[in-house]
Amino acid sequence: MKTKTRTVPIQLGDRSYPILIGRNLLNDASLWRQAGEGSVAAIVSNTTIAPLYASALEASIRALFTHVIRIELPDGEQHKNFSSLNQIFDSLLSAQADRGSVLFALGGGVIGDMTGFAASTYMRGVQFVQVPTTLLAQVDSSVGGKTAVNHPLGKNMIGTFYQPQLVVADLDTLNTLPQREVSAGLAEVVKYGPIMDSKFLDWLEVNMDALLARDTEALAYAVQRSIELKAQVVSSDERESGVRAILNFGHTFGHAIESGLGYGVWLHGEAVGCGMVMALHLSHRLGLVSEDYVRRVTSLIARAGLPTKGPDLPPERYLELMRLDKKSERGQLRFVVVEENAQASVRGAPDELVADVVAKCCE
Amino acid sequence: MKTKTRTVPIQLGDRSYPILIGRNLLNDASLWRQAGEGSVAAIVSNTTIAPLYASALEASIRALFTHVIRIELPDGEQHKNFSSLNQIFDSLLSAQADRGSVLFALGGGVIGDMTGFAASTYMRGVQFVQVPTTLLAQVDSSVGGKTAVNHPLGKNMIGTFYQPQLVVADLDTLNTLPQREVSAGLAEVVKYGPIMDSKFLDWLEVNMDALLARDTEALAYAVQRSIELKAQVVSSDERESGVRAILNFGHTFGHAIESGLGYGVWLHGEAVGCGMVMALHLSHRLGLVSEDYVRRVTSLIARAGLPTKGPDLPPERYLELMRLDKKSERGQLRFVVVEENAQASVRGAPDELVADVVAKCCE
Repeated sequence: MKTKTRTVPIQLGDRSYPILIGRNLLNDASLWRQAGEGSVAAIVSNTTIAPLYASALEASIRALFTHVIRIELPDGEQHKNFSSLNQIFDSLLSAQADRGSVLFALGGGVIGDMTGFAASTYMRGVQFVQVPTTLLAQVDSSVGGKTAVNHPLGKNMIGTFYQPQLVVADLDTLNTLPQREVSAGLAEVVKYGPIMDSKFLDWLEVNMDALLARDTEALAYAVQRSIELKAQVVSSDERESGVRAILNFGHTFGHAIESGLGYGVWLHGEAVGCGMVMALHLSHRLGLVSEDYVRRVTSLIARAGLPTKGPDLPPERYLELMRLDKKSERGQLRFVVVEENAQASVRGAPDELVADVVAKCCE
Repeated sequence: MKTKTRTVPIQLGDRSYPILIGRNLLNDASLWRQAGEGSVAAIVSNTTIAPLYASALEASIRALFTHVIRIELPDGEQHKNFSSLNQIFDSLLSAQADRGSVLFALGGGVIGDMTGFAASTYMRGVQFVQVPTTLLAQVDSSVGGKTAVNHPLGKNMIGTFYQPQLVVADLDTLNTLPQREVSAGLAEVVKYGPIMDSKFLDWLEVNMDALLARDTEALAYAVQRSIELKAQVVSSDERESGVRAILNFGHTFGHAIESGLGYGVWLHGEAVGCGMVMALHLSHRLGLVSEDYVRRVTSLIARAGLPTKGPDLPPERYLELMRLDKKSERGQLRFVVVEENAQASVRGAPDELVADVVAKCCE
């Protein structure tokens, strides 16, 4: 059965672009004309993904560019740094890539973030196309225009807001994804239930098994709906000065877990999954949701294959790590909390209460 | 006599900002309220400029911020690189500078370009204020929003377009400028005559001696007029996709000189001065200006204390270096040429003709 290709338009004025979601898109040469044309195309990928998909992508875009080069970075969050970024710049300059070049980010969020950052700064900006090959990247990094590299003192500390020309989410690439990464991607899918869409939460409860079994129709809808919901938020707050912060549900706690354990020990989605459990408990302690609701969503997170219990660090360490997060304002911690009608808001909370919640979730 | 403070508004929609030009501005605490306020202010400067002016600036802004930190970079174009950039990031992160921080660029073009780049990428963008202390930076880097660092394979290859909140051009800071740098700054002032404003060319011929003697009234007008003319161009082409290219008069040749000799051997303005002579000769060979006009403007460039004869590199080397310039399009060289009525345009030229012009200007 051929799943029909779905198109979600991302409306951002003169920075608008489409996201295509479907099967067998990498091999559909006709589709790639939307990626532009020019002198140099650079396919930026990693040593895991490139052997699987770079040839198909190259075959589909070869006719559009004078030169197609491949840049293969080492795989993993620990390589999301200036050294990898410089590898991209070195390759582009060696290939004499000019301002009319197009960068293709073929891989997960790390590749997307770094390629986007490189595109936004190479000669002060060249075009780029995202080809996300993980569920997390398809639902999350494909909308929002956030690019970044990590700094030894903090995750995603250096970056830009920069929109791609086009995003192509080929669901077939998810077939080679380790199950652990499917679960990690589902964290950012599940998120949209509590913060924005009660019906989607219901749908996820019904379809979680199909998603874990990578049923294409279920994945197509989950990806599409997550993107639509994220796009609603991002369109009204492109540079994250206000409402967009609700997308960070679970992320304040999650970033503390990631940096406390060292990047890459837990996957980002795993940390967010557990961080959402903490944020749900905090919402309960603030009187916003019932214990039943906390249990309900926690159970869905667990069914997605995600951890619901935090790593055993002292609560004070969590607080310290959260204060270093770039979303903290003048050292004041801010948390996304939810109500049962899928309304999210951002607020502070007393340190003691936060420490209590963390302690309870790490038992 | 107190020179009145002049304000040139730069109109760029929601990225508009004012440029203040006058005397004793560093010490005028009331003025600095326009710089915003917040948690951390970082004064980014170099080891030459900081001892002269950082204390005055710090005193004027101290009341507006919780913490004021100073970041002192090594002085010189050879330090406009990722290593210096990381020094800025390290200092900001160590000071726990959040998104409400403001970066102050106190220095010349190198400091302005790097601080602007750091501001545009630190936590995906924080505010910055330019305090240019060289004539070149006052007339040139204060308008246009270009930020950059150099890469071993090319100058300004990595950067962004990012606008400051405010520019404060204190003419008193020019008193400590070496004469060679006054001349280098005048290159970017003289430029506006041939490309845009015949009356300004006349004015420069009358006032060149006063400018070299750092007469404040003459400097104030030259800075103001250059900024106004640049702003006209930039406002209609913020991201340099069209007409803005005329501001690169002399720069294609100039960049070849700079990179051919190694950055820092000639000052940027010196290379541009000589590059304008080459561009004038090219304009003559293309039938656009008379020999008299070439002599007239060359003489003004010489009076400004700038070289009018190129370094002795083989013409083929010039061509090769120019082809590496990021403004070349698919290897095609593009030159800004002028007509005598101060009309500039961008066009290609045969390699042989360009080599001829270079050879003649290096004799």
